[in-house]
Amino acid sequence: MDHEGQILPAAHGIAVGLRSGQAIRIENVHGTQVVDTWALSARDPLEYASMEHTRSWNSSIFVEAGAVVVSIRRRPMLTMIADSSPGRHDTQLCPCSSELYSQLGCEEPHRSCTGNFHEALAPLGMKVPFTPASLNLFMNVPIAADGSVTRKPPASRPGDSVTLRAEMDVIVVLSACPQDITPINGADHTPRDIAFAVLNAPQSGNSDD
Amino acid sequence: MDHEGQILPAAHGIAVGLRSGQAIRIENVHGTQVVDTWALSARDPLEYASMEHTRSWNSSIFVEAGAVVVSIRRRPMLTMIADSSPGRHDTQLCPCSSELYSQLGCEEPHRSCTGNFHEALAPLGMKVPFTPASLNLFMNVPIAADGSVTRKPPASRPGDSVTLRAEMDVIVVLSACPQDITPINGADHTPRDIAFAVLNAPQSGNSDD
Repeated sequence: MDHEGQILPAAHGIAVGLRSGQAIRIENVHGTQVVDTWALSARDPLEYASMEHTRSWNSSIFVEAGAVVVSIRRRPMLTMIADSSPGRHDTQLCPCSSELYSQLGCEEPHRSCTGNFHEALAPLGMKVPFTPASLNLFMNVPIAADGSVTRKPPASRPGDSVTLRAEMDVIVVLSACPQDITPINGADHTPRDIAFAVLNAPQSGNSDD
Repeated sequence: MDHEGQILPAAHGIAVGLRSGQAIRIENVHGTQVVDTWALSARDPLEYASMEHTRSWNSSIFVEAGAVVVSIRRRPMLTMIADSSPGRHDTQLCPCSSELYSQLGCEEPHRSCTGNFHEALAPLGMKVPFTPASLNLFMNVPIAADGSVTRKPPASRPGDSVTLRAEMDVIVVLSACPQDITPINGADHTPRDIAFAVLNAPQSGNSDD
């Protein structure tokens, strides 16, 4: 097991390669932290996890335990094989970005999930000329009957985790969301560290393998 | 007024350039036809209309009269200035694609909104190496309290139309959705023509202009 208990510091991002069958467990150490998550095919970064195809595949606007995250070409990329949180992970809202922080009144540069996505891919030599929609783990965005959305603190508890199994060789990008203006990362508006671990596929019992 | 009453044949797509201030009226001639719609900046096709940023901007999962469609860089691209339909235009589901039709059991090639998007851009020399999420005009996808989605025939009536005003110079791509397996284009599963017209900006009263 590589990376066990590795910490992703608050407001930062990381890219993690998973071979098909490996999984990543993402732990909400403090319970209040949103994790913007992307997946890209290891062979072609333009085959990315698509929230619109994922909603179509699952006939649901949420990603919950058992749901499959599919690519823009409708190939399974990740399966959520475990989830100890209240679930209902958000697929509606964009990753935060420098433009969003400007619109929220920030006059100084502000770290963002969009920046973290590209920063995390750079050491791998991967460049994506846009920012796909993210799967927003632990993000609590209730939708009213009239379609309006609200941005609430996570309903998860300290230590809650989700586990995503790779269905192909993928690069997973995680961003511990830097948002500190809305309450999306807790009522105290404080981005915090998360933890993650890469889990190897269960070994086959067949010693001839 | 250019293009007045131009017909877009069933199951086909078209790209239409709009200068800032011009508008496009899209008429659901038969009332039962979904129109997958995209916008790209005329200057940089990688600045595309983003459903995830649009939901964030409007704090709503639907695009309705008055809503602004923003780009991946959070710049207004289109405003829905008029809508005679029941509204609630879908932003959840992917444009249909060859992969989707294969998964629905089609053994022969099937026209798709994804194919129409790229086919419509080709004569302009525009290539986009992926397919952004579409704004699905007239598409009726109710969302239950548990987050599940259903695919229903449009609630619009023959002649209902929406009007989108360009807030920058844009290329709008329309696809009269070819879907004939689900009832999304009517209970009789029959894709039909739509009509559209480009409307010039109201002239200023100042003759010195």
